[in-house]
Amino acid sequence: MPARLEGRLARPDRPAAGDRCPIDRAMRVVGTRSAVLLMREAWYGTTRFDEFAARVGLSDAITSSRLRELVDAGLLERRPYREPGQRTRHEYVLTESGTDLVPVLLGLAAWGRKHAPEEWSPSTTHAGCGADVTVEVRCAAGHEVSPDDVVITG
Amino acid sequence: MPARLEGRLARPDRPAAGDRCPIDRAMRVVGTRSAVLLMREAWYGTTRFDEFAARVGLSDAITSSRLRELVDAGLLERRPYREPGQRTRHEYVLTESGTDLVPVLLGLAAWGRKHAPEEWSPSTTHAGCGADVTVEVRCAAGHEVSPDDVVITG
Repeated sequence: MPARLEGRLARPDRPAAGDRCPIDRAMRVVGTRSAVLLMREAWYGTTRFDEFAARVGLSDAITSSRLRELVDAGLLERRPYREPGQRTRHEYVLTESGTDLVPVLLGLAAWGRKHAPEEWSPSTTHAGCGADVTVEVRCAAGHEVSPDDVVITG
Repeated sequence: MPARLEGRLARPDRPAAGDRCPIDRAMRVVGTRSAVLLMREAWYGTTRFDEFAARVGLSDAITSSRLRELVDAGLLERRPYREPGQRTRHEYVLTESGTDLVPVLLGLAAWGRKHAPEEWSPSTTHAGCGADVTVEVRCAAGHEVSPDDVVITG
């Protein structure tokens, strides 16, 4: 059930989209499993380096390099903190840009739950009413939109 | 604005989630930029090998290996076709499982449009009414849910 393409995107000989594609631009920032799982942890409230590494199961080197990339890209903020008698350390906190990635995380979770099932998956529910939470494709007029009713104009 | 964790996920010493996390399971399948962009193309209606390679800007070797992985994982179906006087070739068509990845693609597009802006991005609109299409985080009771009002129970 493909989308409907209009404009330059509808040409059979259209070239690679590159920078013109916002999906591509997003994947250049969070296009690795480790980056996405570190963003999951940040959304779960993890802030400390050692906890990011342990909870995602990454080496210190990979954790350090990925966290720096996510800070540089603006998805996490690096803040100094100091406990009594300790040297200054840094914690990593979700920014507004990082929070805007939550629909992607929930979309991946919904896909994984349905198409790569395991005995057990965490549930996601609404604190306000207890109903299951997921992502929905909708238009600004409030209609639920099926993937083949999306018009992409490029 | 972190989520609220309950159950085992709320323990400070919780181990790496691994197979128990559906986000991780999804990223093991579509956790590369090339896989995601091939899925974008399949959603755009691309079916032929040469067009996948050209429109994503990938080598034949990477295109071949990624398409095979996506077929093996059930997101694309490989079908034979034959044009007059030509040998049999194969086309790649979105399955139901692949279609279920569209909310992730739209979530990435919304993030890229807002946080990695370029002069120009394609628009996504509803064929039915013309209004802008995006992904929304909602609960089964119909409420819009903010990322810090999601309870994750594991």
